[in-house]
Amino acid sequence: MSKQTGTRVAFQGERGAYSEMAAQAMLQNITPVPCTSFDAVFLAVEQGEVDLGLVPIENSLAGSVHRNYDLLLRHNLHIVGETQLRVEHCLIAHQGVKLDGIRTVRSHPQALAQCEQYLTDLGVQIEMSHDTAGAVRALRDSSARDEAAIASRLAANQYDMQVLAESIEDNKENFTRFLLLSTEEREAEGEVKTSIVFVLLNKPGVLFKALACFALRDIDLTKIESRPFPGLRWKYRFYLDFLGSQHTEPGCLALHQLTEMTSELRVLGTYPRNVWLNTGLDQSDV
Amino acid sequence: MSKQTGTRVAFQGERGAYSEMAAQAMLQNITPVPCTSFDAVFLAVEQGEVDLGLVPIENSLAGSVHRNYDLLLRHNLHIVGETQLRVEHCLIAHQGVKLDGIRTVRSHPQALAQCEQYLTDLGVQIEMSHDTAGAVRALRDSSARDEAAIASRLAANQYDMQVLAESIEDNKENFTRFLLLSTEEREAEGEVKTSIVFVLLNKPGVLFKALACFALRDIDLTKIESRPFPGLRWKYRFYLDFLGSQHTEPGCLALHQLTEMTSELRVLGTYPRNVWLNTGLDQSDV
Repeated sequence: MSKQTGTRVAFQGERGAYSEMAAQAMLQNITPVPCTSFDAVFLAVEQGEVDLGLVPIENSLAGSVHRNYDLLLRHNLHIVGETQLRVEHCLIAHQGVKLDGIRTVRSHPQALAQCEQYLTDLGVQIEMSHDTAGAVRALRDSSARDEAAIASRLAANQYDMQVLAESIEDNKENFTRFLLLSTEEREAEGEVKTSIVFVLLNKPGVLFKALACFALRDIDLTKIESRPFPGLRWKYRFYLDFLGSQHTEPGCLALHQLTEMTSELRVLGTYPRNVWLNTGLDQSDV
Repeated sequence: MSKQTGTRVAFQGERGAYSEMAAQAMLQNITPVPCTSFDAVFLAVEQGEVDLGLVPIENSLAGSVHRNYDLLLRHNLHIVGETQLRVEHCLIAHQGVKLDGIRTVRSHPQALAQCEQYLTDLGVQIEMSHDTAGAVRALRDSSARDEAAIASRLAANQYDMQVLAESIEDNKENFTRFLLLSTEEREAEGEVKTSIVFVLLNKPGVLFKALACFALRDIDLTKIESRPFPGLRWKYRFYLDFLGSQHTEPGCLALHQLTEMTSELRVLGTYPRNVWLNTGLDQSDV
């Protein structure tokens, strides 16, 4: 307990990003390591500069983050956990500023789009920035008292700024699922989930036969998505999540059978399903 | 032939947008009707202000455009065609400007992200705009000779600007699939495709049974995607495309059986598969 450095967790964005918020909710005593890109997060984990990486993989409004699926295929990391975060956007300004004094609001284009109705009603000018938390930091460094930024509550705390309004997103059903990545596989306990990516052989009814590997063993699927290979008319990559482990039956038998129908099959990891890791009891083993 | 107004086609963006390019490739003699949002495109079609609408539904790098699936469910329009466009980004500036004089490049955030490596190598500052074609129009209206915009070749032509470089996207496998929308169903000929959206009943193995409706009739699927309902742990909406018609066997039998496993089922349309419509012979019936 004398050593004060916590688990080093890499994420994309500046301090106060939604990914950092997800990491804080999932793990205790972390040392956040901001990265400029998703690629940089994967590299930091792979090269041992950090203990873990946390990346978004799916948003309820925007869909799968294909970039991170591509990076999962390119790097040799394991998914060791997942969490879901409700994205609650805050309008953030300098201390003492009033809402009716705001003329300009700045944020990442996706955050601005998700608050479109609120901003229209407010009647402000909008400006785009590269990052939600970055917009708050830039505002803190300026003296503009007629400007606000849209970001997480964590970003407001991080830069000691005022939250003028919260939950300003137009659609409240805005959730992002994040994955925790490690160079080491972990033994997963409780209800577990396995994520795989595969390419099917070109045979009649092959998708149905692939799903039979799971259905015939009463294995539940929690995600399936086909992604076309551009220019290749019959070739698709599939993302699939199922309940159960890759290492124990019936999951390992299903995966074994699936190899008969696939030209590529990659198991990305078996991990506890949507469980808050490290509730203060198990920090030492991270 | 005396009447010079072509088929009025609504799309999101300014004149010269990639959607307009897809519309021009798909249909001859069109009157382009730019709209500020996807919602406005759907409304324009529904209210008869235009003959057709064209919206992106899927990009090979970014995935499904969930917003447009939501709008398809909310409005009562039919998909009557599809097309695919390779997204080739151009660097566009004033006539006579040289590449090495460019200091700032402006475009939509997604276009900027797709040309990240090229822009890094060029060593320019980047600025975000709301629209690719809009960035070209704004540049045309300014006198800035050290600035460029990223947009389609059509946008350069539209605003009489110079293409300094083309195909500057980092990943050449950048395709977008667009759907053509109408208030009227059309009889589709040749190889046809049907798009549906459904919600499964909560029963064991229900996805497998749903796919059996198609597999047992040797119907090929070209897309399947599950989309979680946030907060509802077991509820998913599925997007599925299959080869064949909703009106003839075996497609109509498969759809009939599928109602046994679904709490919601919506057929979005049967349409020719990736066929260039209106090759000059059939303009009159649009």
